Amino acid sequence: MTNRATRRTLLRGGVATAALTAAAFPGTAHAHTEALPIETRRPGGTGPKIGILLFDGFSVLDPTGPADVLSRLPGATVTMIAEQRGPVRTDTGDVRLVAEQSIAEVDRLDVLLVPGAGNRGTIAAMRNQALLDWIRRIHRHTRWTTSVCTGSLVLASAGLLTGRRATTYWASGEYLSTHFDVTYVPERYVRSGKIITAAGVSAGIDMSLYLASLIAGDTVGKAIELAVEYDPRPPFGTGDATKADPALKELALRLLAESQI
Amino acid sequence: MTNRATRRTLLRGGVATAALTAAAFPGTAHAHTEALPIETRRPGGTGPKIGILLFDGFSVLDPTGPADVLSRLPGATVTMIAEQRGPVRTDTGDVRLVAEQSIAEVDRLDVLLVPGAGNRGTIAAMRNQALLDWIRRIHRHTRWTTSVCTGSLVLASAGLLTGRRATTYWASGEYLSTHFDVTYVPERYVRSGKIITAAGVSAGIDMSLYLASLIAGDTVGKAIELAVEYDPRPPFGTGDATKADPALKELALRLLAESQI
Repeated sequence: MTNRATRRTLLRGGVATAALTAAAFPGTAHAHTEALPIETRRPGGTGPKIGILLFDGFSVLDPTGPADVLSRLPGATVTMIAEQRGPVRTDTGDVRLVAEQSIAEVDRLDVLLVPGAGNRGTIAAMRNQALLDWIRRIHRHTRWTTSVCTGSLVLASAGLLTGRRATTYWASGEYLSTHFDVTYVPERYVRSGKIITAAGVSAGIDMSLYLASLIAGDTVGKAIELAVEYDPRPPFGTGDATKADPALKELALRLLAESQI
Repeated sequence: MTNRATRRTLLRGGVATAALTAAAFPGTAHAHTEALPIETRRPGGTGPKIGILLFDGFSVLDPTGPADVLSRLPGATVTMIAEQRGPVRTDTGDVRLVAEQSIAEVDRLDVLLVPGAGNRGTIAAMRNQALLDWIRRIHRHTRWTTSVCTGSLVLASAGLLTGRRATTYWASGEYLSTHFDVTYVPERYVRSGKIITAAGVSAGIDMSLYLASLIAGDTVGKAIELAVEYDPRPPFGTGDATKADPALKELALRLLAESQI
């Protein structure tokens, strides 16, 4: 390759754009050496410690959407955590994400996120006392405790949602409200104190952008939304279960079930 | 836990919903044993073989959004592939996804997806002849060759985009058009023959839903969009770079750069 790809030009769109930016906003030509705006600099220079719990059968987008978004917070660390260190398999069985730390090694987090899973994985997590004990312990000191999709059923099993409003995967809302003392609210994400639960799968992205703004302010939230180019254009407009006909819901759940081991 | 969580009730919202569905649509009470609608059953019973290339420094949402979506296609397999088997580290350095197969082990794919990365990872991939050779070889027989974010720069480096229309991460569009014989089109995703390139990061989800419909029809595409509950509600509406002011773009790129090793 004969192109001279440099860090600046690859992601700044070329010399012309960089020059234009510098002319319009003095000082931005050296933007990469300037300090971040004051609201993004954290006392002590360290950012939020974010921990994402993985368990067998999780749905891959649940933890990774939030991981990508929240990792852009100044000074943030994102750690995948599971009962044991090592690869954890997703619901489809053909993808594995590495848990860098075990629950025994993690005593404190600023943010805890519990992803969802298919039936098998969710039920197993809901019954796993070691995980539930750890969640309760960590929750005592988090700034934010969050979930995506059926991860809220795991939070509920740990007793964290008692008497609260919360959401979950669209097909699990009735289960949440009938089996726990929880008010199911069919919104994209629901905040109850320091707990934020999100709807299914892709809702983790919306929720984590909201969470990013709670942690570091709206300006950073807006910038991260742009950084991950979150300008969604769903091809079909069928992502809202409250508007879906029963046949489509059946097919959706069937495709899911048949993709999961 | 005293709740009797069963596969059906957990994801079908309880007995009431299941009964209602059965009454309205005869036969759906046993939906899980029925054959899929004819347009979703593939000849031979096997679905698309989807391969996602991973390389050091990739952005985690680029491959995982598509992996979650495309894995719901009937009979699909999703395989993470890299130069060598084993964990591959993301741009932030704190997350690893496992490559289940090496490029030497994969001769043929129905769908190839190349994710993007930060500067360092993208440039390294663009110069990696082993990866480029493999991409060219696989591309000869794919039904679809796709990319997310700066992954299109890697496709361009392999020569696949010559004379074509394509997109990429918003901050790399000018680079794409000035360094390659490619027409940069700032859309969410762009199809050129059997090649589909997507814009940054989260655009991989939109693109893969579109791709799912090309592979298995609109009904399946709609159902998968519902299955992953893709009803996005970006908190800020700042994901479109064409509408962003220069200061926000600078901050976005700075947050990205500072999150990447």
